[in-house]
Amino acid sequence: MALTGVMRPGHCQLRVLDLEESVHFYQDVMGLQLVGRDRSNRVYFKCLDERDHHSLVLRQSERAGMDFYAFKVSSRAALDQLEADLRAYDVATERIPAGDLLETGERVRFQAPTGHLFELYADKKHVGNPMGTHCPEAIIDGRRGISPLRLDHWQIHGSDLDGSRDLFCDVLGFKVAERVLTEDGQGDMAVWMSCSHKAHDIAFVRDTRDNTLHHAAYLLGSWEGVLKAADIMTIHRASIDEGPMRHGITKGTTIYAFDPSGNRFETFCGGYDFYPDMEPTVWTLEEFGRGVFYHSRRLNERFLTVVT
Amino acid sequence: MALTGVMRPGHCQLRVLDLEESVHFYQDVMGLQLVGRDRSNRVYFKCLDERDHHSLVLRQSERAGMDFYAFKVSSRAALDQLEADLRAYDVATERIPAGDLLETGERVRFQAPTGHLFELYADKKHVGNPMGTHCPEAIIDGRRGISPLRLDHWQIHGSDLDGSRDLFCDVLGFKVAERVLTEDGQGDMAVWMSCSHKAHDIAFVRDTRDNTLHHAAYLLGSWEGVLKAADIMTIHRASIDEGPMRHGITKGTTIYAFDPSGNRFETFCGGYDFYPDMEPTVWTLEEFGRGVFYHSRRLNERFLTVVT
Amino acid sequence: MALTGVMRPGHCQLRVLDLEESVHFYQDVMGLQLVGRDRSNRVYFKCLDERDHHSLVLRQSERAGMDFYAFKVSSRAALDQLEADLRAYDVATERIPAGDLLETGERVRFQAPTGHLFELYADKKHVGNPMGTHCPEAIIDGRRGISPLRLDHWQIHGSDLDGSRDLFCDVLGFKVAERVLTEDGQGDMAVWMSCSHKAHDIAFVRDTRDNTLHHAAYLLGSWEGVLKAADIMTIHRASIDEGPMRHGITKGTTIYAFDPSGNRFETFCGGYDFYPDMEPTVWTLEEFGRGVFYHSRRLNERFLTVVT
Amino acid sequence: MALTGVMRPGHCQLRVLDLEESVHFYQDVMGLQLVGRDRSNRVYFKCLDERDHHSLVLRQSERAGMDFYAFKVSSRAALDQLEADLRAYDVATERIPAGDLLETGERVRFQAPTGHLFELYADKKHVGNPMGTHCPEAIIDGRRGISPLRLDHWQIHGSDLDGSRDLFCDVLGFKVAERVLTEDGQGDMAVWMSCSHKAHDIAFVRDTRDNTLHHAAYLLGSWEGVLKAADIMTIHRASIDEGPMRHGITKGTTIYAFDPSGNRFETFCGGYDFYPDMEPTVWTLEEFGRGVFYHSRRLNERFLTVVT
Repeated sequence: MALTGVMRPGHCQLRVLDLEESVHFYQDVMGLQLVGRDRSNRVYFKCLDERDHHSLVLRQSERAGMDFYAFKVSSRAALDQLEADLRAYDVATERIPAGDLLETGERVRFQAPTGHLFELYADKKHVGNPMGTHCPEAIIDGRRGISPLRLDHWQIHGSDLDGSRDLFCDVLGFKVAERVLTEDGQGDMAVWMSCSHKAHDIAFVRDTRDNTLHHAAYLLGSWEGVLKAADIMTIHRASIDEGPMRHGITKGTTIYAFDPSGNRFETFCGGYDFYPDMEPTVWTLEEFGRGVFYHSRRLNERFLTVVT
Repeated sequence: MALTGVMRPGHCQLRVLDLEESVHFYQDVMGLQLVGRDRSNRVYFKCLDERDHHSLVLRQSERAGMDFYAFKVSSRAALDQLEADLRAYDVATERIPAGDLLETGERVRFQAPTGHLFELYADKKHVGNPMGTHCPEAIIDGRRGISPLRLDHWQIHGSDLDGSRDLFCDVLGFKVAERVLTEDGQGDMAVWMSCSHKAHDIAFVRDTRDNTLHHAAYLLGSWEGVLKAADIMTIHRASIDEGPMRHGITKGTTIYAFDPSGNRFETFCGGYDFYPDMEPTVWTLEEFGRGVFYHSRRLNERFLTVVT
Repeated sequence: MALTGVMRPGHCQLRVLDLEESVHFYQDVMGLQLVGRDRSNRVYFKCLDERDHHSLVLRQSERAGMDFYAFKVSSRAALDQLEADLRAYDVATERIPAGDLLETGERVRFQAPTGHLFELYADKKHVGNPMGTHCPEAIIDGRRGISPLRLDHWQIHGSDLDGSRDLFCDVLGFKVAERVLTEDGQGDMAVWMSCSHKAHDIAFVRDTRDNTLHHAAYLLGSWEGVLKAADIMTIHRASIDEGPMRHGITKGTTIYAFDPSGNRFETFCGGYDFYPDMEPTVWTLEEFGRGVFYHSRRLNERFLTVVT
Repeated sequence: MALTGVMRPGHCQLRVLDLEESVHFYQDVMGLQLVGRDRSNRVYFKCLDERDHHSLVLRQSERAGMDFYAFKVSSRAALDQLEADLRAYDVATERIPAGDLLETGERVRFQAPTGHLFELYADKKHVGNPMGTHCPEAIIDGRRGISPLRLDHWQIHGSDLDGSRDLFCDVLGFKVAERVLTEDGQGDMAVWMSCSHKAHDIAFVRDTRDNTLHHAAYLLGSWEGVLKAADIMTIHRASIDEGPMRHGITKGTTIYAFDPSGNRFETFCGGYDFYPDMEPTVWTLEEFGRGVFYHSRRLNERFLTVVT
């Protein structure tokens, strides 16, 4: 295969302060499909167009934030090879047995220098999407909620951005698609990285607060879908951080908002295709505001301060 | 890198009956950028968002159609490996020297069982897009013509579909994303194949006419862009084959039209992400019409008969 | 008021061959709200954004087509005046008592020279739309079906186009917004007429078949809504006549399709504002095809032959 | 005619601090067509789809703001009648001779209780739009700038809102489409008024600053046009006040921004049709924020304080 190794963000486990309120939110406002609960009372969701069993796991906790971030890899052999590569890079790995998460095979877990727990896995039950794979219809009529197509990427913060960036480049095969330089222009304040030809599969921002989540991002089908998402957020009085708007970085159109626990999420559309032969786009720190908020051209206070 | 080997369609050389009329068409109606002419009087074009030197080469000829189809690969090492793999698969290869096409490195050429000439190459001059990679703007105002973002894929016809499909799967790392079965349900009438996570980078359709082109496809940014494309075709009295409409296969929205030489092209938007772990979508021959023309649900005569 | 007299198309009574099949169609595919049935077993519907009780009445019959077309006028005084004006123009009028149609006041009925029965009325129960008029939300989430905003206009055919056109201009205050000339350029083959600042509230086409319906048109909110309408038609295997496409005449974007009885309808969006001080747009018969089907630029056979 | 008397906003004369900078702005950023300069060095512009000679007049001044607001009426007879009606209502009127504004007939000027100068006129030279009225094309390719379709409405502020509202209702035939109540619920804080079936042709907001402009609004064709407007504003570093977003009031989608003199303008799309038989939509002061800024649900400081 031309796309091998790490393929895409596969799932993440999100801590929420009130499980049932969050189940309501992700089901009725976000419009995700509830696909299961496990014995630890974790609740599982998938997006409309995803074919694997789940992409979001909610866990009740006294503190919001993300427990771990998982990428699906192309095969068990790739999983073994990537684990070996991680160890060769002096990264400790742990095997989480199959079945720990519903319908999910063995996972290889490691901690990145920014403090975040990552996982790789090769197997998750194919449950398909509601359109199916036999002479399917193109859409599902009457969907309720924002109903994104799929989990797309995460933006996460930590101090050793360089360490995580290099680990993702050197071991996991990611490429930097866009970067914001530090004030002196000598280092990276933020990097958007791709393991595919999406403009980003993950973004790291330099921040003293290790192992923090800025947002999890969900893909919509159009700019009109972005408007509908904002309308639905208002109908449900969900807290919008900023948007609808465009990003300068990746050029996608988007809304940032918060779930009931204060976890930021993004519902976005578009962005260009980034292939590994392309040079990264570079932003000065001065233009970071326009990079993120292309229309207002200034970072809002919440963007810089609120992480979970 | 997670995306290695064959990355994407990179360029193709199209035969046109009247070069200057075609230059006008691809420049003013399609809105491509003319980037050069070579000593053989071939004319080179690139799309708005492409960063390499060109993606379309026009050559005057007495017969319309496509001379060859080229994929960019991730590195020279990948090029050498793929050439070795092709030979190991008993496919003859030829090296076209660097510089034969403007600003393009060495190409490895081979013929597929359906009769088409394919090329692989690793090097082409990066010329960038007009937005640039330093604190870029998101759009270019006042673009004229259809102005697609990039060359996306080709649909080509030939009798030994099985042979070409297997070659692309077994040697080049493609996966079948969607297929239309033959009437008896035992074979493939058509396959849409991906070397990335696009729903298709190439499509083969079984047809007694070997080495023929059904269409070259160009990507647009939105369904409103599809409308604008149709409007511009009408303003210039370009010949629309069908559309605006949606495809059932890939679920994109689209128009088929003809260039002045009768070469069909597609200007389309959307389509889902196909990853290599996904099962192909399967269509019966009976539903082929809805698969291609989702709204009219019947193949028009031209779709089946006109190739160049 | 600056908008007085005839305000807008208010309702029409459509003959259908199988009432329950049609109720299913207009409710589940078109996404209209069923608001009542009367003692004559007529079924009443309204569109999402309409505030009056109904805009469509279905009546079972052995022959498809439209019984009558009704415009709402601005007041009872306006109704009386318009009736007097009609009679002064030698048009016979009839008063249909209040309550003949559910929740509807007295109607003034007359026959136009093209054979169609028209009605004027001033009173219909305000039932409101689901968003309400007190601090409303902007949208309703999870609507099923095409769910147009409102009834917009009708295109109807008959031989004495000149007579109906003049009656609508001279007595009812309509203006011709666009016209297609007859082959000799001396008369009107078709006229699009406005009683407001919409590009058309009614259109007449010259046709030997008097008192026939070409289509009833329903308004959508966007070109993406037109796409969704086409997708929903396909999901339900409704018969699409042509589209999605753009009109040259009025410049709207649109689909023509058929209900289960063969009555054509249109789901469209857009079109410019036409004010009474504007000169009509004129089309030659030669360009009629592009006027109606802006992208294909030719009238299809059904457009010219199928009326009910 | 069914639409008689006051038809629509026709033109306004805007004071700008630096004429040439403003000419550049309205021509290149807004994408209006410069149609003339007069002996007083006023500069005239029209929008893409407008057919009359101009809709915007710029005048250099040391203070930003609007000199006067003009509505086109349906005929000279209507102009005379409306002047008589104004005088009968004890409103002083003045006749400005034909030719005072380029290509414009006699204007009737009066001052509204909120301090604003209004004008009515019946005649302005028809210059047509670039598509024409003979077998026109549907769009113009390659337009630069925001390129709105037409001037749509104004929001203006003053203390005697009741007086202006009543004058517009009682004499000019406007209807209140939406209103925001004062805190005690007994009066109007703001009213959106229509002389047609647009959701608003003018809006008055209660404010101690008489004769002030909140914004002049220009119509776009789609939500994607709103995005493009915001992108173009950023490319030119125009000052965006808020948006892209949706209004709760009128339900349109929109951006507020400032011209180089600090005059706010709106580029918007959509909004429902309001006919004179409809009840006004009522908002409490508490929900005013959601009414204007449907997504953020709070009035920003600038919205309340900046007028010119």
